[in-house]
Amino acid sequence: VKPVGESSVRRLSLYLRFLDDEEGRGRRTISSEALAALAGTTSAQVRKDLSQFGSFGIRGTGYDCAALRGRLREILGLEREWRVIIVGAGKIGAALAQYPGFGDRGFRVVGVYDADPAKIGSRWGQVRVQSPAKLATDVKRLDAQIAVLAVPAAVAQEMLGQVAKAGVRAVLNFAPIPLIAPRGVTVQSVNMAQELEALSYALAHAPAPATKSKRSRGTG
Amino acid sequence: VKPVGESSVRRLSLYLRFLDDEEGRGRRTISSEALAALAGTTSAQVRKDLSQFGSFGIRGTGYDCAALRGRLREILGLEREWRVIIVGAGKIGAALAQYPGFGDRGFRVVGVYDADPAKIGSRWGQVRVQSPAKLATDVKRLDAQIAVLAVPAAVAQEMLGQVAKAGVRAVLNFAPIPLIAPRGVTVQSVNMAQELEALSYALAHAPAPATKSKRSRGTG
Repeated sequence: VKPVGESSVRRLSLYLRFLDDEEGRGRRTISSEALAALAGTTSAQVRKDLSQFGSFGIRGTGYDCAALRGRLREILGLEREWRVIIVGAGKIGAALAQYPGFGDRGFRVVGVYDADPAKIGSRWGQVRVQSPAKLATDVKRLDAQIAVLAVPAAVAQEMLGQVAKAGVRAVLNFAPIPLIAPRGVTVQSVNMAQELEALSYALAHAPAPATKSKRSRGTG
Repeated sequence: VKPVGESSVRRLSLYLRFLDDEEGRGRRTISSEALAALAGTTSAQVRKDLSQFGSFGIRGTGYDCAALRGRLREILGLEREWRVIIVGAGKIGAALAQYPGFGDRGFRVVGVYDADPAKIGSRWGQVRVQSPAKLATDVKRLDAQIAVLAVPAAVAQEMLGQVAKAGVRAVLNFAPIPLIAPRGVTVQSVNMAQELEALSYALAHAPAPATKSKRSRGTG
């Protein structure tokens, strides 16, 4: 199976979400049209996304939900455990470690690191917070594949370099700064500050709402 | 001031982040080149982004950090309080309500809603969890401008419709589903499941790492 584009991978995630939902409701088959409507795309795009990984559809019947779901989980690498280290033992890291979707995807936290001496040694679920100085040896020792960066912007690129050098190849970055990914390392960023400021910007620059009509509210 | 593109707004957020950092270090002025390097763009783009809102730069000196920071906060709507309701009293909503960047931006949680009778009435900081049936009247009563949707995918579009109808014009969506924004409503989505699955996909499809060389690790 050859790697596909990022937008295609994001749609595969969406298809899987709907199959999870539909299976819960007892649905047996689903059409590319139904998947397309749910994911906000076209049925041609759905068929194209899925055909990259083999042929699943049955003409006139659509896709078998259970089979497609299993195949998507396999394609997305969800049928095995991934070992995760969290760098930055603050609130974002804690929230993520508790996020049910984290464990559901086989992401298991095996190490937590923080430069604050007051935090080192404290318990985080099954692990204890360690100094970042341990990263160089811990990544290999713990067989960690993924690092979550929940550190201040000023040190994020430096910490990315450290975890990459230690052998991590996939990073989820929560620092509000664009990072330059080292070669062979995939970095996904969640920038909550940008999302929040996009909302406050939109509100600050929205036209005054119509006061008479109940339905028309102006364009944003 | 006329509205600008979304990517421009996202860069303004980044510039502000760096100015926050630099001001902490006592820096007085910053060049468009320095801002560009930090935000991963070009100095021409920085000047273009900022010139939309007036002229701040002094030729040969760059931008005055404090003045530019103040202006960016104003442009991004951060100089006033925004009143926020959280729909879905689960872990994601709780993490967000505790996120320091939330309060720092003047985002104040004034209401929390959940359909689970076991949660209704329980305390969340200064507020008590209410039934979503109250949304229709609460948005106006509480003067809420922003809604955070932290509900299951299956009900997210329906809840978006309800908060929009009640008068909310800006929504931060954590449900793992693309939503159709009602007219005049800005929706920003954070899809953690997609970010995590993009990482596991990349790991599952990465070429085997080189074992001999310390520096070359193959392209991801």
